[in-house]
Amino acid sequence: MSTLNINEERLWSSLMEMAKIGATPKGGCARLALTDLDKEARELYIQWCEEAGCTVSIDQVGNIFARRPGNNPELPPVGTGSHLDTQPTGGKFDGVFGVLAGLEVVRTLQEHNIETEAAVEISVWTNEEGSRFAPAMMGSGVVSGRLELDTILATEDVDGLTFGDELRRIGFAGEVPATARAYTAFFETHIEQGPYLENENKIIGVVTRGQGQRWYDVTITGRESHAGTTPMHLRKDALVAASSLVLEVQKIANNHKPACGTVGFLQVFPNSRNTIPGEISMGVDLRHPDDDVLSKMDAELRAYLEELPQIADIELSVDPYWYYAPVDFDPACRAAVRDGAEAHGYSYMEIVAGAGHDACYVADFAPTSMIFTPCKDGISHNEIESTSKEECAAGCNVLLYAVMSMAGVSASD
Amino acid sequence: MSTLNINEERLWSSLMEMAKIGATPKGGCARLALTDLDKEARELYIQWCEEAGCTVSIDQVGNIFARRPGNNPELPPVGTGSHLDTQPTGGKFDGVFGVLAGLEVVRTLQEHNIETEAAVEISVWTNEEGSRFAPAMMGSGVVSGRLELDTILATEDVDGLTFGDELRRIGFAGEVPATARAYTAFFETHIEQGPYLENENKIIGVVTRGQGQRWYDVTITGRESHAGTTPMHLRKDALVAASSLVLEVQKIANNHKPACGTVGFLQVFPNSRNTIPGEISMGVDLRHPDDDVLSKMDAELRAYLEELPQIADIELSVDPYWYYAPVDFDPACRAAVRDGAEAHGYSYMEIVAGAGHDACYVADFAPTSMIFTPCKDGISHNEIESTSKEECAAGCNVLLYAVMSMAGVSASD
Repeated sequence: MSTLNINEERLWSSLMEMAKIGATPKGGCARLALTDLDKEARELYIQWCEEAGCTVSIDQVGNIFARRPGNNPELPPVGTGSHLDTQPTGGKFDGVFGVLAGLEVVRTLQEHNIETEAAVEISVWTNEEGSRFAPAMMGSGVVSGRLELDTILATEDVDGLTFGDELRRIGFAGEVPATARAYTAFFETHIEQGPYLENENKIIGVVTRGQGQRWYDVTITGRESHAGTTPMHLRKDALVAASSLVLEVQKIANNHKPACGTVGFLQVFPNSRNTIPGEISMGVDLRHPDDDVLSKMDAELRAYLEELPQIADIELSVDPYWYYAPVDFDPACRAAVRDGAEAHGYSYMEIVAGAGHDACYVADFAPTSMIFTPCKDGISHNEIESTSKEECAAGCNVLLYAVMSMAGVSASD
Repeated sequence: MSTLNINEERLWSSLMEMAKIGATPKGGCARLALTDLDKEARELYIQWCEEAGCTVSIDQVGNIFARRPGNNPELPPVGTGSHLDTQPTGGKFDGVFGVLAGLEVVRTLQEHNIETEAAVEISVWTNEEGSRFAPAMMGSGVVSGRLELDTILATEDVDGLTFGDELRRIGFAGEVPATARAYTAFFETHIEQGPYLENENKIIGVVTRGQGQRWYDVTITGRESHAGTTPMHLRKDALVAASSLVLEVQKIANNHKPACGTVGFLQVFPNSRNTIPGEISMGVDLRHPDDDVLSKMDAELRAYLEELPQIADIELSVDPYWYYAPVDFDPACRAAVRDGAEAHGYSYMEIVAGAGHDACYVADFAPTSMIFTPCKDGISHNEIESTSKEECAAGCNVLLYAVMSMAGVSASD
């Protein structure tokens, strides 16, 4: 297998061009799923794919598939892709890099007149971030069968707009059934979003597994009353209870290294300076690479939530609405990634994916792995998220190698 | 002094009529300062005042003064009043009762052709609640000289709209100078908003003082990053720090009974389930009847805020933007209230006002006291805030007695 190189400048300039859509003053991106900005990004991307010789189709959940034909129509395509939506204060690379790396692979194949046996298909999965519509990874989740299409279409954002209505509004409610696709192999290229590659001074992460996650919605109901006239012992302060829970989540995670435990979303009602908070809605996110430990963390959280109403004189409801077991990636796909890194002489290491990724759902129905590249100071989901042109090129070169080795090259210049 | 009675049904029906403006599904009111609903309430009130024979004027900060002339123009009027704005999930009585009790007094005087020596003036003070524009009690605060007119007019709500622009928009930027007014005496009738009268089974509270308050704005800056890939020990989680502060505020209040300590407002940024919170804005409200104890609480809070950046690896800024010393009410005004309760045979007790009230600012420039009536279960700043027709009538009868005794009756049927 040759070590053909992708076009570093072309990849970088496409990344910078896409980052203009939803650009934030601090240099990041705010391009939430199914907004006008998401529509604009999708349309630009489709234009680029068509210019690169791909045929584009859209499925019922808005996933975009751009296919470059292969010479053997009997073979399922080799897939690659990620997502175009971002966090409210997201960066320029999370997701977008994996999509545009796929496009750059196709552009490189096209430029060099390389014909592959299996087709190559780049996918954009809808609403990976889960910021506007929870849970995350809806597009790949529906295709994998883990999430129900009808439930997803009916999911509301905080303004009460449904996923289905917004999908139609931006013109991306397609007709292709949102069901499992046949793939010879699937690869997702992604910035690491953590500090490990940088700390170990490696350029490529060969991702062995995705850690497990459990997401909960918690609603705490106290009683709003006057902040100046309600004696402390007669209060039902929902925010005091919520604050205890935030600290407990941190404690649970600290007790089970390398676990993560986070409350990222918390909304206070009525949120007035001199009224005792009467209701809190909040999200709890627990993660661990080992499913047994994750179960233990879940049990500890639930035990605390049982106690809290007695401690704080509030009522509480818990919706453990998302569980996602750790995922092992395919050995042959992992080997293709490792071989690509070796062929190019890139330093590499095996690594666990801390975040959820579309590839974790794709792994349900296709041999899958991921390619990680470093991300400055390990910071992601932040406008200052950063990586270098050279690191992006390295990840994309490894992807090109893995795609070509799995698709099979039948002819080239 | 006769024990003339106000018209219980008329007072109650005016309260119920006014409560329709901004009525909430749970039976409360959401009529924030300087909104279209506030405008509607003000216009209805002015119509009622004019029908009751009053002349209405508006000052530069939007306070409304409705005056029923007296026979001796040399005497400053006897004032009474409160506010028409509510909390976002407020009740039907907080503030409104004090305004409409004043109107009912004037209607009763009118109905019985009672002429008073001093004029009677009912005031509506702008933005008492401080929910939309902080701090609270802006209208009376400017008149007392404690707050600067220009600063108040420039104050922004969370959407960046200024108080001054909104005041003009609703047509209540008047021309009367917003400066101290001459009053023979001033009375504010108000529901207690706490549990003491109900617990002691008393109908009237003779308010001796208002407790001191200190309000702070705290901004905590951490670093937003990915909830699944950022190891716990490398996080700068602003919400974890904010939660510790919420619990510390509670601890400080619990250590200084009968103090109150509350975080009613807390906003998380970017507020996404799988992003570690990067910034929190929150309000802290400390209260105590004794100024020395309040100073001690302030020192404890500041000491904790000094420590917090070291404990939680965040940055922090504090704006102690409002301090309001305990206020002693006027002995002669308190006596008039007590005499009114005795004349009518109502049970009464002396009580401290836990909330801030416009009367506390009016006390800066006029002899002032307050009349409290019970409120069900001590709950206020809540849609279920409740009081009875009879309790409203009792408070209003005491007000009528106090106003007549201070204004002097020159003629009646």
